[in-house]
Amino acid sequence: MRLIECVPNFSEGRDHEKIQAIVAEVNRVEGVKVLDLSPDADHHRTDLTMIGEPEKVYEAAMNLAVKAVELIDMTCHKGEHPRMGAVDVVPFIPVSGVEMAECVAMAERFGREFSEKTGVPVYLYEDAARKPERKNLADVRRGEYEGMLKEIGTNPDKVPDFGPNKMPLKSGATGVCARFFLVPFNVNLGTTDVEIAKKIAKAVRFMNGGYRYVKAMGFDIKERGLVQISMNLVNYRGTPIFRVFETIKSEALRYGVPIVGAEIVGLVPMEALVDVADYYLRLENFKFDQVLEKKLLEAYEG
Amino acid sequence: MRLIECVPNFSEGRDHEKIQAIVAEVNRVEGVKVLDLSPDADHHRTDLTMIGEPEKVYEAAMNLAVKAVELIDMTCHKGEHPRMGAVDVVPFIPVSGVEMAECVAMAERFGREFSEKTGVPVYLYEDAARKPERKNLADVRRGEYEGMLKEIGTNPDKVPDFGPNKMPLKSGATGVCARFFLVPFNVNLGTTDVEIAKKIAKAVRFMNGGYRYVKAMGFDIKERGLVQISMNLVNYRGTPIFRVFETIKSEALRYGVPIVGAEIVGLVPMEALVDVADYYLRLENFKFDQVLEKKLLEAYEG
Repeated sequence: MRLIECVPNFSEGRDHEKIQAIVAEVNRVEGVKVLDLSPDADHHRTDLTMIGEPEKVYEAAMNLAVKAVELIDMTCHKGEHPRMGAVDVVPFIPVSGVEMAECVAMAERFGREFSEKTGVPVYLYEDAARKPERKNLADVRRGEYEGMLKEIGTNPDKVPDFGPNKMPLKSGATGVCARFFLVPFNVNLGTTDVEIAKKIAKAVRFMNGGYRYVKAMGFDIKERGLVQISMNLVNYRGTPIFRVFETIKSEALRYGVPIVGAEIVGLVPMEALVDVADYYLRLENFKFDQVLEKKLLEAYEG
Repeated sequence: MRLIECVPNFSEGRDHEKIQAIVAEVNRVEGVKVLDLSPDADHHRTDLTMIGEPEKVYEAAMNLAVKAVELIDMTCHKGEHPRMGAVDVVPFIPVSGVEMAECVAMAERFGREFSEKTGVPVYLYEDAARKPERKNLADVRRGEYEGMLKEIGTNPDKVPDFGPNKMPLKSGATGVCARFFLVPFNVNLGTTDVEIAKKIAKAVRFMNGGYRYVKAMGFDIKERGLVQISMNLVNYRGTPIFRVFETIKSEALRYGVPIVGAEIVGLVPMEALVDVADYYLRLENFKFDQVLEKKLLEAYEG
């Protein structure tokens, strides 16, 4: 079972006929499953989460992107969310049996083919970035649609990775990336002293010398009389959940403060949880293939 | 996503044409997946593991059983494995979103319909047993095909739960049950003193006052210089893996002996591992629906 996820964001969140026409392009690819569709009228933007075998997902994402360029006109687009084009971003995310390198190659192939088909300039970011200054989407998208209209073609830093060095008025520009599955993971401490949460957040986060793939902040949760270490685990393979949790446990102990709970927000790949069970049960040679539902998925795909 | 497993065992392990004809009865039910097929020539017996939605699995199991009765002749059957009929046993096992009570009701319905269709006497056992003395399959099957031929119709203890009180020569009798998914779970201790493994096995197993759903034995693993507590967890919902593991950890500590590893043998439902992660990470309100692959399975089934 080889699975990737793709979460294209496109700049239409109000016209449901258009949204349906765009989503239909995904549905006509057999074997690709839409797990979530979130049109947002205020943002005037829709996020679609799809999953499936790599080649199928690629095909569905391409169909969607081409249709979105056809139907969306950026000249009259206003919304609260930052955006640079009709197809704003197309991230490819390894989920199961797929390495990051494959998603990076896919992002590159997608960027080239999409810009050839539509004439839209494409920027590669995150793990697919070709320059360090394009790693962060916020840097790539700076100025948004309106600002980039002026800059592309004049500012040498804004030369796209694929497509013309000129931004089409109607469709704007598109970001394509490969990135890991993000797991939002929060740990609650039985104290009202938010400084402890902040110190522990500092201890585990990359920015201050902590784990490479952890972003963390300390917060008050006044209504529960607790404080929280709120994290984004941006690569649970590189920095697994259990290791972060054990470090927080040991740091909390040093302040004499108990861990009273934790939460995983939203979807999480089975692999991330199997790794936790594997660690705590000290399993020898456990294989992901032993999970019944994995077998079942393979049977569906076979 | 509602899933049950069914593992019919039938008394043909040599004639591959017959085996294929029987398995074909399962394959023609859409949505039922065969996860394993193990024909055994010495046992002259085949175990088939299938999984799917309850009603689909019921239908596939019925098709298979009726076909096996048609094709298999017990009068000339010899094999090493104990057996009482052409369709020896049909166990229904809750896997996901299904309670045991539903599998018990299904075993009863299956027993009635199968005996009506084929004239085969049916015995309910395990969680579907109607009398305590029929709980264990070994007790129900005592005497096997040859012995039961003489006893059914004369011994009042052998009156079947469904079907005639007379055993048809060609097809013998059939056991139908509902039971939980069995998880073989072994824990290795860093000592050569097998007595410690035996004492801990005694502490956790039901028979000696331990956990209700644990069977356990202590063994030597000479080639590794270790000892092992070898267990069958017969209901991981009632007695979860982490609780057994933590008890072993604390008992081992009392003898000053380390746990050096553990193993889960064969397939394990995702739910059993998610429970382990949930416990050790102290998750609040984690829902099984948050597992990406569960969503994906639902999409396949929808």
